[in-house]
Amino acid sequence: MSKKNIDKLLIFALGGVGEIGKNMYCVQYANDIIVIDSGLKFPEEDMLGIDIVIPDIGYLTENRDKVRGIIITHGHEDHIGGLPYVLKHLNVPLYATKLTMGLIEAKLKEANLLGTTNRILINSESVLSLGVLTASFFKTNHSIPDSVGVALDTPEGVVVHTGDFKFDQTPVNDQYADLHRMAEIGKKGVLALLSDSTNAERPGYTGSERSVGIEIEEVFRKAKQRVVIATFASNIHRVQQVFDAAAATNRKVTVIGRSMVNVVSIASELGYLHIPDGMLIEPEEVNKLAADRVVILSTGSQGEPMSALTRMARSTHRKIDILPGDTVIIAATPIPGNERYVGRTVDELFRIGANVIYGPGSVTGVHVSGHGSQEELKLMLNLIKPKYFIPIHGEYRMLRQHAILAESVGIPKEDIFMCDIGDTVEIQNGAARKGSKVQSGNILIDGLGVGDVGNIVLRDRKLLSQDGILVVVVTLSKQDGKILSGPDIISRGFVYVRESEGLLEEANRIVTNTLTKLMNENVNEWASLKTNVKDVLGRFLYEQTRRRPMILPIIMEV
Amino acid sequence: MSKKNIDKLLIFALGGVGEIGKNMYCVQYANDIIVIDSGLKFPEEDMLGIDIVIPDIGYLTENRDKVRGIIITHGHEDHIGGLPYVLKHLNVPLYATKLTMGLIEAKLKEANLLGTTNRILINSESVLSLGVLTASFFKTNHSIPDSVGVALDTPEGVVVHTGDFKFDQTPVNDQYADLHRMAEIGKKGVLALLSDSTNAERPGYTGSERSVGIEIEEVFRKAKQRVVIATFASNIHRVQQVFDAAAATNRKVTVIGRSMVNVVSIASELGYLHIPDGMLIEPEEVNKLAADRVVILSTGSQGEPMSALTRMARSTHRKIDILPGDTVIIAATPIPGNERYVGRTVDELFRIGANVIYGPGSVTGVHVSGHGSQEELKLMLNLIKPKYFIPIHGEYRMLRQHAILAESVGIPKEDIFMCDIGDTVEIQNGAARKGSKVQSGNILIDGLGVGDVGNIVLRDRKLLSQDGILVVVVTLSKQDGKILSGPDIISRGFVYVRESEGLLEEANRIVTNTLTKLMNENVNEWASLKTNVKDVLGRFLYEQTRRRPMILPIIMEV
Repeated sequence: MSKKNIDKLLIFALGGVGEIGKNMYCVQYANDIIVIDSGLKFPEEDMLGIDIVIPDIGYLTENRDKVRGIIITHGHEDHIGGLPYVLKHLNVPLYATKLTMGLIEAKLKEANLLGTTNRILINSESVLSLGVLTASFFKTNHSIPDSVGVALDTPEGVVVHTGDFKFDQTPVNDQYADLHRMAEIGKKGVLALLSDSTNAERPGYTGSERSVGIEIEEVFRKAKQRVVIATFASNIHRVQQVFDAAAATNRKVTVIGRSMVNVVSIASELGYLHIPDGMLIEPEEVNKLAADRVVILSTGSQGEPMSALTRMARSTHRKIDILPGDTVIIAATPIPGNERYVGRTVDELFRIGANVIYGPGSVTGVHVSGHGSQEELKLMLNLIKPKYFIPIHGEYRMLRQHAILAESVGIPKEDIFMCDIGDTVEIQNGAARKGSKVQSGNILIDGLGVGDVGNIVLRDRKLLSQDGILVVVVTLSKQDGKILSGPDIISRGFVYVRESEGLLEEANRIVTNTLTKLMNENVNEWASLKTNVKDVLGRFLYEQTRRRPMILPIIMEV
Repeated sequence: MSKKNIDKLLIFALGGVGEIGKNMYCVQYANDIIVIDSGLKFPEEDMLGIDIVIPDIGYLTENRDKVRGIIITHGHEDHIGGLPYVLKHLNVPLYATKLTMGLIEAKLKEANLLGTTNRILINSESVLSLGVLTASFFKTNHSIPDSVGVALDTPEGVVVHTGDFKFDQTPVNDQYADLHRMAEIGKKGVLALLSDSTNAERPGYTGSERSVGIEIEEVFRKAKQRVVIATFASNIHRVQQVFDAAAATNRKVTVIGRSMVNVVSIASELGYLHIPDGMLIEPEEVNKLAADRVVILSTGSQGEPMSALTRMARSTHRKIDILPGDTVIIAATPIPGNERYVGRTVDELFRIGANVIYGPGSVTGVHVSGHGSQEELKLMLNLIKPKYFIPIHGEYRMLRQHAILAESVGIPKEDIFMCDIGDTVEIQNGAARKGSKVQSGNILIDGLGVGDVGNIVLRDRKLLSQDGILVVVVTLSKQDGKILSGPDIISRGFVYVRESEGLLEEANRIVTNTLTKLMNENVNEWASLKTNVKDVLGRFLYEQTRRRPMILPIIMEV
C-alpha cells in the first residue's frame, strides 16, 4: 500500500469556465503552483465603455512565492492577451512554443515588458521540472500552429489540460496531433482531464482545415477579377493556404490590415509561413496588375468597424477600392454578437456590386472551426481515460453538454466537476471533492484604468445611455439661502432641445417652485433640496415623456 | 393596339427593404394609393434608449386624400405594430382578416383608438374596389394563421405582394396555401411581384410546422417530470400543437406570460385555437398535479430579461419554479442579437438542473421558420411569373440573394429592382424604371416621444455610455467676472470617485488655473471660457486615462 499524502492537489480556474475567454487555469500542490494560459475576454454588452476584461489574480499575487511559472498553450488573445497585465504584477517564468512566444513578444514589446520578463522556449518534447510538478506536452490541432496540450505529473497523479484542440486528420503542413503520445499518457493512467468545451454543443466532427484550402483555390480559379479574402490573422494555416492557392492560380498577394501584416511578418520570420519569392506585393502595386492576377488578404472577417475589409466595403480605405465584379470571401463565422456587423459589411459589399461568399462554413466551405465537435471530444476522453473530468473553455451550457458527453463514454456523474471561476477541486489520496473557493472575478480595463470601473460606474453609463442626463444648477446665497442664479437646466441625450422648449421651460418652473417652497418652509440642507428636486423633476419628466433621465442637481453657494 | 396610359403606376416601400421590420409598401396609380402593412422595427444596437422605430409617413400624410386604405397581410408586430401611430395621423379604412383584426384591435384598444378607426374584415375571397385599384387575396402559410398575399389589379396590370410566406405541404389545421389561386393569377399575367426575402440566404426548403408537433409530442412523452415550452405567442399553430401533444400525453396546460395569455385568449375566442375542455389550468394548480401531468406554456423564447421563462430560470417567477429534472423546450431560433440572452437563460436552466432542449431547429426538431427558403422562393417566382420583380422583407444581402434566385429562374437582370426605402419603381405603358424618391426614413419612438430623439441625442447617449460625463460648474461675479464659487467637478459613469480622488483634484486645479489665466488675459466671453475648459480638461483626462468623457462646462453668474 502506498504512503498517505498529507498535502492536497488543487485544480481551479481563474477564468475560462462559465465564460468564453480570459482563460487561466491553476494546478497547485502544496508550495508549487503552475498557471496555464493568461487570456483576456472582450466585454459583454452590459460592460459599457470597457475595452477588455482580465481575471482577478489576487490569489496568485498573494501566493507569488509559490508560482513556478505560466505555461501558454497557444497564441490566441483569449490565452495570451492578459499577459501584459499579469506579468506586471507577477513576474514569473513564462513557457511557450516558438510561434506562441513570437506573438507574446510582440505584445510585451508594446507594453515595454520585453526586458523584464523571463521567457523560456519549449517544444512538444520539452519536460519541465517545476517544484514537485513536472510538465510535458503534446501537439494538438487548432486554428493556429504550435498549439500544445499539457500533462502535469503531480504527487497525486497526472493532470492533463488539452488547450484548445480539434482532431484534424489531414492537417496543413503535416502538423499532426500527437495521437500516440496522448494514447501513451492515457494508458499510463490519468487522474484528471481538463478539456476544451467550445464546440461541445455541436454534433459530429469538425471539418479539416485542408478542405478550406481546396475550396479557396476553387474560388480563386473561378473569379474573373480580384479576390479579397478576410480571415483571422492568427490562422496561419489558412493564410498559408491563401498563398498556396494564389500560387496555383497565378495570382499575387497583397496583405492589408495591421494584425494581418504583423502576423504574416512574425510567422514567416519564424518559419511557420512559407511565401514563394515574388508572391507578395505592396497594396500600391495592385492596380498595376490585371484584376485576375490579384489576391487581397485582409483583416475584418468579423465586420469590425475600423478593419481593412469594412473600410474597403465603405470605400474609405486609403489604398484599395473594391470594384463591381470583384469576389470577396469572408472566411470566418461571426462570433456571437458580431452577426450584425458582418451582415452590414456584406450589405455594403453587395451594394458595390461585389460577389460575396459569406455565411456558415458548412454552406460556403471556406471556413472550419478550430475546436473539436462532440465526436472529437469523446475521442479525447477515450484516449486520455481520466478518473476525474473537469470541462473547461465555455459558457455553462457548453460545459454541461461536455459533461453529458463524458457520461456517455462512461465517466460516472460524481467524477465530473462543473466549476465556476474560483471553485477548487481538491484531490487527496486519489479522492476528489469540491474545496473552498479562492479569490476570483473580472477586472475591467477601460483605457489606461485597470479596475477603476465597477458596478456603480457601469450602472451610471447604462442609465445615461438609455435616457441621457439633466443637470440642474442653482446658486444660493450663503447669507440668506435665497436663489441668486438659476435654476438652469442643461440636458444631454434626453430630447431634441429645440423641439422640446416648452417641456424644459415647464421643468424649470417646477424646479423653481419646489426650491422656493422648500425655502419658505426653511428646508435648506442641501441633501434635502437635491432629493426634492430629483423626485419632483423625475416624476414630471416621466409623466410627460415616459423617460427616466439621470437627474444631477448641483447647488453652488456664494 | 391598346390606348397609351397618361398616368403612371408607382410602387415603393416606406419600410421593409434594406432592413428587417417596419414593413410598409405602397402602390399608387394617379389619385389612388393603397398601403400594404404598417409595421414597427426594434431598435438597432446604436439606437440607445429607443423603444421602437416606425416609418416616416410624410408622403402619405401629404397625400392623405389619395390614400384609399391600409391592407394588413398578417398579425405580426413588424406588419401591424406601427398602426397605433400611423392611424393617429392617417385615419383611413383598415382591411384585415379575422385573427389579424383581433390582434390589431387589442393594440388599438390600448392606444384608445378603437372608437375612431374604420375597420373592415376581409377573407381570402374578398374583392375590394379601391379607386381604380382592385384588391383580391390568396391564403399563404406562415407562422401565424390567417396570413394572406395581395393581388392588386391596376390599369398597368396586376401587382402581387406575397406578405410573409412559406409553402407548408402538411400545414396544421389543414390551412393550405391557395396554390391554385396563385397559379391562376400567374397564368393571367402579372406585371410585378413583391416577394418575401427573409430566408433568401437559406438553401433548400423550410420544414413543415407539423414536424414540430410530432417532435414536441415525443418530448412530452419521454419527459419524466414537468415540461416547460417557450415559443412565440403569435405562432398559434404551434400553440395548438402544444395543446394537442398535451392531450395525447395526458398532461394539463397552464399558460404564463402576458402576450401568451393575451394571444391564447384572442385566438380561442375567434376560433383559431381549440382547447379541449378541462385542459387549461391556472398556474396555481400546477403544484396540485403530478409532475408528469403538467405542461407550462410560456413566453421568453428569446431570453427577454422580463419574460416568464427568464424569471423562472432565475427562480424569481411569482408562481412557478423550475425543478431539477424538469424539461424545458425553447421552441424558437434566437433573432440575431438575442443569442446571448437565450444563451444566458439556457445556462441558468442548466444550473437549476433542468434538461434543456435548445439550439437550431434543424438540430432540435422543435422549431421551423415561418419563411420560405430558396426553393420555395423560386416556386413562388415560377407560380406568379412576373414581368418585373422587387424583392422585399430583408436586409440588402437578403434582397440581393433573392434577386440572384430570380435571375436563376429566368427573370432578366434589368427587370429586377433593388429598392431602398423611398425608391420608386415607375411603370408606364408596361415599361418600368426607377423614378424619383419619395420622403422616407426612421421615426424613433422613446417613451411617449415620437420623433423627438434624433442623431444628436443618440450621439450624446453613445458618448455618455462609453466614458460617462464630467460636469464643471463655476459661479462668476457679474460685476468683475471673478470666480465666486467653484469650479466644482461632478462625474458620473467616468471613474470610481473614491479611487480617483487625486485625478479629480488635479482636474480641478487645471480648470481653476485655466479660468484664472483667461480672466487675467481679459477673456471673459462664456463661449470662449467653456471651449477652453473643455479642451484643457479633455486633453488632461485623455492623457491620464485614455478616456474621453463628455465634458459639460456650466457658468453661473450672480
